[in-house]
Amino acid sequence: MSSLTTVHAPKGLEGVVATKSKICYIDGDLGVLAYRGIDIHELADNSTFEETCYLLWNGKLPGRNELQELHGRLAAERKLDPAILDFLRNTPKGAMPMDVLRTAVSALGLYDREEKSNDHAANVSKAIRLTSQIAMIVAAYDRLRKGKDVIEPDRSLSHAANFLLMLNGKRPSETAERAFDIALILHADHELNASTFAARVTAATLSDMHSAITSAIGALKGPLHGGANEAAFHLLETIDSRGADPVEYVRAMLAQKKKIPAFGHRVYHTEDPRATHLRKMSEDLGRSSGQPKWFEMSCKIEQFVKAEKKLNANVDLYSASTYHVLGIDVDLFTPIFAVSRISGWSAHVIEQLDDNRLIRPRADYIGPAYPQHWVPIERR
Amino acid sequence: MSSLTTVHAPKGLEGVVATKSKICYIDGDLGVLAYRGIDIHELADNSTFEETCYLLWNGKLPGRNELQELHGRLAAERKLDPAILDFLRNTPKGAMPMDVLRTAVSALGLYDREEKSNDHAANVSKAIRLTSQIAMIVAAYDRLRKGKDVIEPDRSLSHAANFLLMLNGKRPSETAERAFDIALILHADHELNASTFAARVTAATLSDMHSAITSAIGALKGPLHGGANEAAFHLLETIDSRGADPVEYVRAMLAQKKKIPAFGHRVYHTEDPRATHLRKMSEDLGRSSGQPKWFEMSCKIEQFVKAEKKLNANVDLYSASTYHVLGIDVDLFTPIFAVSRISGWSAHVIEQLDDNRLIRPRADYIGPAYPQHWVPIERR
Repeated sequence: MSSLTTVHAPKGLEGVVATKSKICYIDGDLGVLAYRGIDIHELADNSTFEETCYLLWNGKLPGRNELQELHGRLAAERKLDPAILDFLRNTPKGAMPMDVLRTAVSALGLYDREEKSNDHAANVSKAIRLTSQIAMIVAAYDRLRKGKDVIEPDRSLSHAANFLLMLNGKRPSETAERAFDIALILHADHELNASTFAARVTAATLSDMHSAITSAIGALKGPLHGGANEAAFHLLETIDSRGADPVEYVRAMLAQKKKIPAFGHRVYHTEDPRATHLRKMSEDLGRSSGQPKWFEMSCKIEQFVKAEKKLNANVDLYSASTYHVLGIDVDLFTPIFAVSRISGWSAHVIEQLDDNRLIRPRADYIGPAYPQHWVPIERR
Repeated sequence: MSSLTTVHAPKGLEGVVATKSKICYIDGDLGVLAYRGIDIHELADNSTFEETCYLLWNGKLPGRNELQELHGRLAAERKLDPAILDFLRNTPKGAMPMDVLRTAVSALGLYDREEKSNDHAANVSKAIRLTSQIAMIVAAYDRLRKGKDVIEPDRSLSHAANFLLMLNGKRPSETAERAFDIALILHADHELNASTFAARVTAATLSDMHSAITSAIGALKGPLHGGANEAAFHLLETIDSRGADPVEYVRAMLAQKKKIPAFGHRVYHTEDPRATHLRKMSEDLGRSSGQPKWFEMSCKIEQFVKAEKKLNANVDLYSASTYHVLGIDVDLFTPIFAVSRISGWSAHVIEQLDDNRLIRPRADYIGPAYPQHWVPIERR
């Protein structure tokens, strides 16, 4: 270790401020989440995913022409290179959608017309392109693995509606479109979460946008991050299929020291502000679709875990029932997280490259004391 | 920001100890690099890449049977899934080899027989498999893009010799095999360098080995990391093709405030111990191959930059001339770094998962003060 080393960080870099950023404000004690200073509640109530993308990438809300231009650019990118479609067609049907998405996004780099350019404007273009492409890849692979045709994109639709069209083969209801749009807004950014941090570490070697987003997808896959909403729905499903009482089932899990998915958060010490919206959405969608049971089960679990363990539900608990009622398969919950988070990931990569420094920490060596010695194999 | 946040880290996490590790010991003041406590000089003089892999993965030098078993397992994995070969065949010939490698390694996850297992034994298997596969992918793609056939692996050869065979279509000389083997040993690990850190951040969400290694490859690609040895050779090539004087050329670069590639290092404040070996190798290979000019040019640049800027040459300066004399194309220098570093990356992923905690730092928000407000578009 070098004599210049001074800061010993807590495990997992908990509480360590790794960078300055103008993108996302979180107050974990008060339960505040804001993009570029605007509270997530105001955005969920009033904004669209496209407008939120503009805000994340440019630092301000768009004027009418700017928003129209962004709509046009996102729609114009609604086309997948035939090589990517071939890859999706030839992928084993049982492959995990996150592995497929990670590989497809990496492959997009091979075909991107600006792959060798790493400046601000090129990276904004790549952000727009990847936002359109990731949604199409998730929808197309889901159809192909089910033996269905890929649906042609509709450039007249919003990003949310086009995704649901390409996934389900029919235009969504207004309620479903708005619900999914709000879900996209709520998941768009979350400061230095693990996948965003992986993207920034990757970009900071002056690598490129596709490398950084590929890293982010790989990190999001893990059950301690994006994978948690899938685990939450598996829990609801298990309770439902066994006809179990949700509170008794979770009580037994706690007695066995099992972790309850979708509870607690590294950053929030109060209610996750995204959960507030998703709880309401899960309730409304559950009622209007005649499937209130998932919402009701989630509520009972939430109240019990809060009373018993003083843990708050996080974003993943009610997104699970919301997505299920929207007709989305459970193993697409994490890919859908990526459909939204690409906006924040790319904003962070652009910010990193605008004022870059290599991210290269140190390790505290605790192995065999130096110097050990090489010895010939006959003396080992 | 939460009240629990306490540690403000320097930019790029410089000097921040982000984890404990038993793998790699570095003393940046004394110029020491050691794997599991054994000095890199002893390993370069006595060990093989296979033995070094065993050491990195298992924490001790192998006995005779253990080493033989590892040779057998590495050789047995010398086969590429036909889907990966198809991908390499259909990739645009002008694609950057690092983009191809990143995509191919991600795709390997789709076909890995242990993809859904994330325990210690499965990850050691994946480390062995990826070590064999990455070398074959780099060699196979280089041949395919040149319109040549893929060479069948030879399971009787060492890892270094098999790679050179598959790259060049003929068995290497003993000198070339040993030189390349030493280069693999020297690049095998380097503590929390940016690509290894990207791998650990990715793995720490409890994602998987293929995701983590894909992230590492994306990070290694950048010119502030693995890409630096390519930049170093481009400099030598430019000086050579212009018939310029190396010292005058570099003096002019410094006058224009240009960065000289392959000088300086975040961690070393004295000679990079890997440079010591590579300098000698570059000299020996240059002489024996009748191409001493690249070594001589590198020496002149090294002496001048050291005198002028007090900067030491790092691992990348003499690896550039070494690889060139071995007949390796310049845009394979970074992929070859990956051929070696997969050993260290996978050792770090295994260590991370053996005692995991999510790596999730914080950002210091410096954007528009909270709360800003959403306003209707006609009032913007």
